[in-house]
Amino acid sequence: MNPTPDDPSLAGRKVGLIGLGAMGSGMAGSLRRAGCDVHVCDAREGVAAAFAAQGGVACATPAELAARCEVVISVVVNAAQTEAVLFGNGGGGEGAAAAMRPGSVFVMCSTVDPNVSIAFERRLEAMGLLYVDAPISGGAAKAASGEMTVMGAARDPAWALAAPLLKAMAAKVYRLGDRAGNGSKVKIINQLLAGVHIAAAAEAMALGLREGVDAAALYEVITHSAGNSWMFENRMAHVLANDYTPLSAVDIFVKDLGLVLDTARASKFPLPLASTAHQMFMQASTAGFAKEDDAAVIKIFPGITLPGAKT
Amino acid sequence: MNPTPDDPSLAGRKVGLIGLGAMGSGMAGSLRRAGCDVHVCDAREGVAAAFAAQGGVACATPAELAARCEVVISVVVNAAQTEAVLFGNGGGGEGAAAAMRPGSVFVMCSTVDPNVSIAFERRLEAMGLLYVDAPISGGAAKAASGEMTVMGAARDPAWALAAPLLKAMAAKVYRLGDRAGNGSKVKIINQLLAGVHIAAAAEAMALGLREGVDAAALYEVITHSAGNSWMFENRMAHVLANDYTPLSAVDIFVKDLGLVLDTARASKFPLPLASTAHQMFMQASTAGFAKEDDAAVIKIFPGITLPGAKT
Repeated sequence: MNPTPDDPSLAGRKVGLIGLGAMGSGMAGSLRRAGCDVHVCDAREGVAAAFAAQGGVACATPAELAARCEVVISVVVNAAQTEAVLFGNGGGGEGAAAAMRPGSVFVMCSTVDPNVSIAFERRLEAMGLLYVDAPISGGAAKAASGEMTVMGAARDPAWALAAPLLKAMAAKVYRLGDRAGNGSKVKIINQLLAGVHIAAAAEAMALGLREGVDAAALYEVITHSAGNSWMFENRMAHVLANDYTPLSAVDIFVKDLGLVLDTARASKFPLPLASTAHQMFMQASTAGFAKEDDAAVIKIFPGITLPGAKT
Repeated sequence: MNPTPDDPSLAGRKVGLIGLGAMGSGMAGSLRRAGCDVHVCDAREGVAAAFAAQGGVACATPAELAARCEVVISVVVNAAQTEAVLFGNGGGGEGAAAAMRPGSVFVMCSTVDPNVSIAFERRLEAMGLLYVDAPISGGAAKAASGEMTVMGAARDPAWALAAPLLKAMAAKVYRLGDRAGNGSKVKIINQLLAGVHIAAAAEAMALGLREGVDAAALYEVITHSAGNSWMFENRMAHVLANDYTPLSAVDIFVKDLGLVLDTARASKFPLPLASTAHQMFMQASTAGFAKEDDAAVIKIFPGITLPGAKT
């Protein structure tokens, strides 16, 4: 699904990417493979320089990057970091927005409250700038291989400018609306399901252990039955291997299910399962597992011995 | 995965099957295709005769069937019906157990409390009879094509007698323990996940509708993302089509999640998500949707217009 490295529409194009984390570094790599002149920036010292050593340009600040690029892609952790990237921490002029040329586009890839994304679009449009609501999904491995999913929404001129770059970074690029909002909404709904499914997988595996069922046999049967989910298959493998190295941490779902609940509360909409799962992740976080892989939500269940654990 | 119709180990073998419902009728058909001499029995008048008109023998009672067959497969709705099949409604001698010859085997395919299945084995063993704990999964279509899943557990002699027949009816036959219990436990855990996933799918789709996201687009994105589950993909297609014809009804999950909670309560084990999902199915049932497809749990959500509904 990736363009060939010599895709003429992308070769030499100046593109900026802010936030070289698990997702952002893979995405920047995809842009480099597509032949773009990739400019990068990261709040952590040395990270941008390390990327640029393999090709590309390291920038010291979002403003420096934004002054040089027609497209600025932001892949930071949350809405607060996106706000700082755009408008600066102190509200001064050091953010990207003030440095962007009129008609250039800001592509927002973080998971945020949809109303926050809608507000970003409004503020940038007031400055003559374009905006794409473009949360991403798929995990670090798919970001690195250019096979992630983009849940996009934007006005026509913004989409026209950003779409070829999104397609260079993703296997699936959805346009879900003609202005900001629906990209973040669909991403939030995906996170509702992902969080509930991880917590349900943990609850089911915990019940099996409590009842004396062999964990590997249970995994084999469920992954071939109607009770399966993408998350059961993926995360319960971590539990079987007793490996809680955080590919995505418990605290990510404390945050993301919190965003789900905030979104629904704004329209007074009840979410019985999402609110229950959120409580489970908060319990896991405060019990000491905040930085472990999100599969560690299984550690909230009492009276069981997890695979590989000392008895 | 099916044996050829002329599998010599099954040809002409006298096999009884009680309960020609959505699953049982497909299973009896698989046995007939495998060349067995299939005896059938159903509490509803005329159902066994209709099956036997295509080949096989209709029996008037479980006792009549049991007297003629070395293997008796029970595919009735629940534990109470299984109890009646085995021991008669009035506790008299009209059940299958009293009519079975010593050394013959009873194969219990219903979804029941694992402790009930364990008790059936104990009672039958006291009568010199063999028992297989063998809940099934996969739905009516896979039962008809011989591609369902069996979650089995039994002692060696019982398993030896029943396994060739189970393999004639299923694509996947798991043996999860060397006595009754683990088959029903794994089935219960599958139902925990299935029930939570249906309710979560409904909750997610309902939030999307509330937020103004296009339902078909949401379905397309989620089924290609990490938030997907077998049940989301299967049941939300019913919601998109506005088709609540009961392939499996809301009240099935009122029952099955009830069994899940009973099982866990016996060992004082907390199930936050299963208990929440059970409340959602009970709400749907008592609100008037008991006999609709289980995807109708989405109808408990207020303030939305479902696809195809009159506004």
